[in-house]
Amino acid sequence: MTANTTTETPTFLAACRSEPTSHTPVWIMRQAGRYLPEYRAIRKTVDFLTLTKTPELAAEVTLQPTRRFALDAAILFSDIMTPVEGMGVSLDFSPGPVVTNPIRDAARIEELRVPNPEESVPFVLETVRAVVGALPKDVPLIGFAGAPFTLFCYLVEGRGSKTFSTAKSFLFAEPEASHQLLEKLADTMALYLGAQAAAGARALMIFDSWAGLLGPEQYRRFALPAVARVIEALKPLDVPLIYFPNQGATLLEDVATVDVDVVGVDWRLPLSKVRSLLGSRISVQGNLDPAALFAPPDELKSQIDSVLAEAGGQPGHVFNLGHGIERTTNPDAVALLVDYVHERTER
Amino acid sequence: MTANTTTETPTFLAACRSEPTSHTPVWIMRQAGRYLPEYRAIRKTVDFLTLTKTPELAAEVTLQPTRRFALDAAILFSDIMTPVEGMGVSLDFSPGPVVTNPIRDAARIEELRVPNPEESVPFVLETVRAVVGALPKDVPLIGFAGAPFTLFCYLVEGRGSKTFSTAKSFLFAEPEASHQLLEKLADTMALYLGAQAAAGARALMIFDSWAGLLGPEQYRRFALPAVARVIEALKPLDVPLIYFPNQGATLLEDVATVDVDVVGVDWRLPLSKVRSLLGSRISVQGNLDPAALFAPPDELKSQIDSVLAEAGGQPGHVFNLGHGIERTTNPDAVALLVDYVHERTER
Repeated sequence: MTANTTTETPTFLAACRSEPTSHTPVWIMRQAGRYLPEYRAIRKTVDFLTLTKTPELAAEVTLQPTRRFALDAAILFSDIMTPVEGMGVSLDFSPGPVVTNPIRDAARIEELRVPNPEESVPFVLETVRAVVGALPKDVPLIGFAGAPFTLFCYLVEGRGSKTFSTAKSFLFAEPEASHQLLEKLADTMALYLGAQAAAGARALMIFDSWAGLLGPEQYRRFALPAVARVIEALKPLDVPLIYFPNQGATLLEDVATVDVDVVGVDWRLPLSKVRSLLGSRISVQGNLDPAALFAPPDELKSQIDSVLAEAGGQPGHVFNLGHGIERTTNPDAVALLVDYVHERTER
Repeated sequence: MTANTTTETPTFLAACRSEPTSHTPVWIMRQAGRYLPEYRAIRKTVDFLTLTKTPELAAEVTLQPTRRFALDAAILFSDIMTPVEGMGVSLDFSPGPVVTNPIRDAARIEELRVPNPEESVPFVLETVRAVVGALPKDVPLIGFAGAPFTLFCYLVEGRGSKTFSTAKSFLFAEPEASHQLLEKLADTMALYLGAQAAAGARALMIFDSWAGLLGPEQYRRFALPAVARVIEALKPLDVPLIYFPNQGATLLEDVATVDVDVVGVDWRLPLSKVRSLLGSRISVQGNLDPAALFAPPDELKSQIDSVLAEAGGQPGHVFNLGHGIERTTNPDAVALLVDYVHERTER
């Protein structure tokens, strides 16, 4: 289902560029992960951190869902904090990443490096090469990184949080230092993503998981310029760029000002409204509620139909969930989803 | 600052009804709480649960912020799970409320009672009476409850969660049972809020903390009819009703269809847009980002000015934060906020 009959370009990449395709491509955020028994089997033998740092295993895990489902793209298995260690930030895992010494002053920010990814994360680039070598030619690999503001949240807060109130307060209390940290993160992520593309990733996605914690004014002041800096640096590569401002319904008019190819959106705003806010230049990716995968098959199909109807068809729609798949999801529901999206959109 | 010179009605209540007022009233979500040293002093001697169930102490904690700041309203100190125990749900606290045996089937829902609040939560009503007796006449007490969907999230998930994915999946997997649970919660909350009004609360607020987890379709199908049922039951009381659909920016057109007096909003959408979505009939409450209280005084004032400008002035604006105050907030910043809102809006 993944070949695009109208051009030589893989369907997923054509849709990213708003070109006509033979069907609506589909992939699933966190498609390589805990809902798959074959993933859990590997995780029984190795901890998460080791998995992300062992190319052979990370590549295997990246490939697993592409063997089981007719997915139109693969996405690198890694963690958004992986490239941050090379900046000079030490992390513990307990079980999620915890910054040993959270960053809360200008002196610490000054000390942070912008590392060369070939030196700081060679294992990630080796994983990319291994995956690209193993994937069918019409299934591109998506490389990814965290957006500067989202990484800022973790570095300042020190750990995951519902509100990231320490990080957000830092924006208000120390705007200059905040800008400096965001710029260093932007430069580091631009190099990191560029290296993934050089290693063979054919699209690049920037996850702004915590963008939705900001009101529009703070978003325009801090998060948006930082992600725009990443995008500007990557634009010459001519690889489709996907930006996912999670819970960003109120930010989309601002998002439309950056030069990305695709904007990923959560399930909170129907895609017809998303499209009207983003304009016709930008493709949309999303946005089925991950909870819909727990519905009986007929209801799941009805929910998928609803997303497809809101998207208004090709060109310019990549089907996905509106957030990462839940670990308790039945893989059979994913198979149904992938096949049904293909069946309903084939032409 | 709390007297309204144009009518006998307290300023806060007049603003709730979109009547002209002498200044913009202000109160703060979680104004009775951990950021106040006098609150922490009481909590050193008693655990949270005991505090909520001991009228003398709960009343004292409710009154504390009204002594320190020129607030235009007080809000009952309690927990949204308090009225749920009387339905036949047993809770542990560790430290937040945990449902001993989460509700995940129709038989459990069938067994739940809709209790009489005079029997199930006499201590809450006694607290209301004690507070009302002690407050100045021009500072009304706001009673409150959780919205049915938000309580549903806790009862099905069993505990607090970032995504409440089990609860959301239950909506998709068991829509009929979900509706039954939501209706029982609506009926229980309607009685609970009505009893608070009978005991002297002069406005009633419904917190839908997790409304923003739903897309518009699921919101219209489940959460909205349930909260509308509460509102319909309370409307004859002629007490202002405030509904707070947290993170509900994409739900406001639907929210505008229910017969509330005030809609509270978080900081993600500027109040000018909120007002245009809600229409002129409904007053708005909010929406300063709680993180702004960590800004230097001049920046904090600028952020307050921005909220006031977006609100477009009275009538129909109650100043508040867009979410509960953070526990690390300096009380001096709250004093600045309250006085500055009064000063800037006095006429």
